[in-house]
Order: sequence, then C-alpha cells, then structure tokens
Amino acid sequence: MDNQTIVVSADALRDSGKKALAAAHVREDIIDPVINGLIWTSLRGIDSHGIRLLPHYIAGVKGGRINPDPNMSFVRSSPAVGMVDADHTFGHASGMKAMGHAIELARESGMGAVGVQNSSHCGAMSWFAHAAAQQGMIGLAFTHATPRVKSPGSNRAFFGNNPVCLVAPMHDEEPFCFDAATTSITFNAVKAAAAAGKTLPPGLVADAQGIETTDPHRAEQLLPIGDYKGFGLSMMVDILCALLTGMPEGNKVSKMFGESMSKKRLLGHFFCAINIASFTDLNRFAARLKQMADNVRAEPALEPSRPVMVPGDPEKKAWAERMEKGVPVPGIVWHEITR
Amino acid sequence: MDNQTIVVSADALRDSGKKALAAAHVREDIIDPVINGLIWTSLRGIDSHGIRLLPHYIAGVKGGRINPDPNMSFVRSSPAVGMVDADHTFGHASGMKAMGHAIELARESGMGAVGVQNSSHCGAMSWFAHAAAQQGMIGLAFTHATPRVKSPGSNRAFFGNNPVCLVAPMHDEEPFCFDAATTSITFNAVKAAAAAGKTLPPGLVADAQGIETTDPHRAEQLLPIGDYKGFGLSMMVDILCALLTGMPEGNKVSKMFGESMSKKRLLGHFFCAINIASFTDLNRFAARLKQMADNVRAEPALEPSRPVMVPGDPEKKAWAERMEKGVPVPGIVWHEITR
Repeated sequence: MDNQTIVVSADALRDSGKKALAAAHVREDIIDPVINGLIWTSLRGIDSHGIRLLPHYIAGVKGGRINPDPNMSFVRSSPAVGMVDADHTFGHASGMKAMGHAIELARESGMGAVGVQNSSHCGAMSWFAHAAAQQGMIGLAFTHATPRVKSPGSNRAFFGNNPVCLVAPMHDEEPFCFDAATTSITFNAVKAAAAAGKTLPPGLVADAQGIETTDPHRAEQLLPIGDYKGFGLSMMVDILCALLTGMPEGNKVSKMFGESMSKKRLLGHFFCAINIASFTDLNRFAARLKQMADNVRAEPALEPSRPVMVPGDPEKKAWAERMEKGVPVPGIVWHEITR
Repeated sequence: MDNQTIVVSADALRDSGKKALAAAHVREDIIDPVINGLIWTSLRGIDSHGIRLLPHYIAGVKGGRINPDPNMSFVRSSPAVGMVDADHTFGHASGMKAMGHAIELARESGMGAVGVQNSSHCGAMSWFAHAAAQQGMIGLAFTHATPRVKSPGSNRAFFGNNPVCLVAPMHDEEPFCFDAATTSITFNAVKAAAAAGKTLPPGLVADAQGIETTDPHRAEQLLPIGDYKGFGLSMMVDILCALLTGMPEGNKVSKMFGESMSKKRLLGHFFCAINIASFTDLNRFAARLKQMADNVRAEPALEPSRPVMVPGDPEKKAWAERMEKGVPVPGIVWHEITR
C-alpha cells in the first residue's frame, strides 16, 4: 500500500497536515503558511515541492534543523528595502512574511525588496510571487539551493539550480507565472525516473565524475540550460540570496538531503514586489498581459492537438483537475502524515 | 579593403565616431553616451553590439528613425520608481539617463527602478548595469528585441531573445557581469557563420518553417535555452520592458533590420539599481563576491589548459588585449565611419 499512489482531497490533506505539524509542536501561525504553501503547490501539479515534503520537514523539526517556535524579525533599512531574520524556521513562513513586507514597501515606494536570512527550505517560489500579483503587483522570488549544477568546463557542481520566478496579474485569468530552475530537469525528477526504471534523454545530467549520462541511477549533477547561461543565472541568484543576506554561498550552501537533520540550513531568499500602478494603469497592464498570453496561445502549433502554451498553463490545468479530483499522494507520504 | 578587418585604437574610434555623429547633427550630449557605450562594448569583445552598429544608427538618424535632438523627460512617480520618455533618441542616451535616475532613487530608497518608453536600440545591457556597480550597487538591465525566438510547440517566433543582465561590484577586480540573451546563439553570430561559410552546431536555430537546421543561410529563428525556460525568460523581460512602459510587445516589437529607417522603433527598457549598503556592508559584499568568483575559477577543469570561468571573464580578457592592441573593425564599417 505504501508503494501505491492514493488520491486525497485538498481539504483532507490540509486537515491531516495541520495535525501532523501541530503534533510536532509547530506554532499555529507557522503551520498556516507551511500547509497552505504545500497544498497550493500540490494542487498546481508541482509534486516535487508539494505535500510530499511534509514528512521531511517534520523530521527537520524533530531533529532541530527547523525551528517550530521562531522569533522572526523584520528591519526596514530604507524606504524600499528590508531584511527578515527567519530564526531558522520554515522558509514558507519567513518567505511569506518577507513578501508581505515587500508588498507594503512597494505600496509606499513603488517597489520593495526584502531579503531573508537564517531560513530553511521554502518550497515553490511561485507561491510567494502570487501573493504580490494578488495585490496588483509584479512579484519576483529567488532562492538558492543545494549545489547540483555542473559548472561549464569543470567536472563538478558549484551552484544550485537556483530558480528565477516572476508572477504578474492578468485580466480575467489567474496570474501569469514563470518559475524555473536553471537546469532542464530537477533532481527530484531524476529520482523519479530512477524509481520508474526509465532512461533519461541525453544532455540533461552528468555522473559524479562530470561525464554526461542518461542513467538516472548514476546522475549526480544537472546540466545548466544554455551551458554558461544557466550557470550564470544560478550565480546571479546566489548573489541576491547569499551575498545580500550574509548566508553561505555556492558550494557552501547546505544539502537538503544526506546531512544531519539537526543541522540548520542557513538559507537566504530574495523577494521583490513592483507596484504596477507606479508605472502604468493596472487594468490596462492586466488586459495587455492577458492579450499577450492569448496571442501566444493562438500561434500556429506544430501539432494541432497540442496548442502553444505560456508559462503557468500546465499548472492551471493541473489545478482545475486536482481541485475536482484530489491530489495524488504517494502512499508512504500519506501514511507518514496520518500516522 | 572593405572586406578586410583593420585594427583601430579606441581613441581613434572615438574621434572618428564622434565626428560621424556630429556630421549627422546628433546633439553633443547624445553623442557622448552613444560613442562611449559602443566603444566600451567593442573593447570588451562584444562586436555584435559595438562600433559596427554606428553606420546603422547614423542611417537611422538620417532616415528619421532616431531623434538626434530629443526632448527627453523623467517623471518620478514613487520614491523608488520613475519613467524616462526617450523621445525616440538613441537607447544609449535614454538608458544611461534612466540608470542614472535609478541609482539616485536607490541611494535614497535602497532600490530604484526606472522604465524607458519611446526608445530605440540601446546596445549592450552590461554597459548600463556597470554604471550602478561603479556606485557600489547591483545593476540590472533589460530590453526587449526583434522577435526571433521560436516558441516551443510552434513553428514561428513570438518574442525576442530579450537579455537578462546583472552586474555587481567585486573587490580588487572589475565588476562581476552576467549579460545573456535567452538563446544560445545571436542572430548576428548566425550571420557571421553564414558569411564565413560555416555550418552551425545542431540545436541552435530553425528555418522560416520552424524546422531545426545547421545551415546558417536558412536560419530565421533562434531556439531558446532550456526550451520553454528561455522562452519564459523572454516573456518575463517583455512584461517589464513593454507592458510596464506602454510600448508594443512580443511579435509587435519592431524589426531592427529590413524595415524603413524612417520608422520609429518604439522600444522599452527596464533598469534597476539595488543599493548594497541597504542590505549589508558593501566592502564585505564585494570581498565575498571576489572570493566566490575565485573559488569558481579554482574548480577542477575538464581540460587543465582551460580554467573554469565566471560570466564576464572572456570580456575582461578581451578588454586587456584590445586596450593594448586596438579594436578589430570590419573595413567597410571603418570606411563608412570615416568617409
């Protein structure tokens, strides 16, 4: 049964997840963002960053890696800039606090940027950036991650596949969402291919010696999109997330898996909100973005049965399906959450 | 002789370029940023965006596309946000004005973002972002461009290979510079391969029907890095450059070549400055970035004779060489500038 996937409604996942976090003595105001972020992400079909992470997080709380009862703080250093100290709690909680402050700053100053220091894993960046879009703003969200990206010209990894995310409001539709790591495949997808006995397409991963492979069991490094360009994007994001926040950078970023669950992760994130109304009419912006997306979707398709999509379209489709039918959850994860 | 490449010192290029712009009745305060930007870019080895563009620009002035005597304006709408109206002059002039305002806003507010509307081609984004780094800030610069990027799942292009650029100060070295379009090859490099009779590596370009090709003569579309990821980056940049500024977007962005030189380009750009001191100690930031870059360079190289590089390293090498030996310029370009 643990090897099977079961389908659970979002409400049932929320109830059970909240109980599991409460049983681990996570404070209620911390539980909310964690469970909301995970279920939102699962509903969008991003299973790698959804509810399946909950048992790992709870192990982190029990081991001491994640602080369930933090004393978070915010310091505004300039009209448009501030910093959140996460006190080692869940990145979902510290990140949403930071984005909330960025939105406040942007309302006043036209734009707001808030760094987060002493944080832990924060899940999908799109969740935070959507909060800005809901306030009529463009949201940008960045985090660094475990080093996995093979450096061009080297045989090993230095940076993580640090994502870039931009979300913006659209008229008559959920926001436009671009949220992409700097590699063509994530390590979680590699693991899934290994478990399913599949071979990977060429050009995606390398083994521990930096040699390209299609065997997911041997994959240790991920190849950056566009070679040095994906590598450079990773470095750019690390400059924002590690160097502006005072956190460890590059190959000093802690590992998510395979290290003691008592070890603090010391992650940094960077959030930005742009108040659209400071630049142009918000309704006009949202209408133009909707038209732009529809124009892309109306482009001639190579295969008529597969229309051209804009970033975020697959997630909107998954959301509609999963709100109706429920979220597929690995049996072992559901078992751990509910036991 | 016009087919040969001649090597010209930066000073000689500057003198002749200034005279050529003055002869086209370009105002002196506009001449300076144009010529400084072009020569700076050529010295860094980015020939596609360097001095070779000058004859094209002068044709634009003569045809009416580019305004040589503009009435530029800046409106600050919020403490951290403003907009420059370029009045159809050179993007080098309007962009540097905008970045100057972004730096001023960031000094006061911690961060500044300035859009540019009614602009024309602006050359390399890194030139503007360096201006922020020289003031102890992180500079970000974006522009949209002629549609050339094949949309995933479609057989034609919708967006340009809209670049993402971040520059940040480093201790004891010129700033870190990441400046990358969203395709693995630029159309200028495709044209150069065609002229040299070379075949392109697979996976870079497509023909007018959207079919992948290695023949540079047939190339019409550029493939995005990481498929939908590069495509999404292009859309993200267009949201900032077209939708925030009120300029035409996507496949409505004007063509640089092959259209009447009397047609205004109506381009938009987006510039951002982040005051590092609002986040952390500037000296510590610059020292850590230098150490990070040196750590990347010290990573084990696949080929010992080719050390691992960070973005911007090839340009620093070109700069040292060209400051000493001069800038290689196609004979026909030099002839047009000096005639």
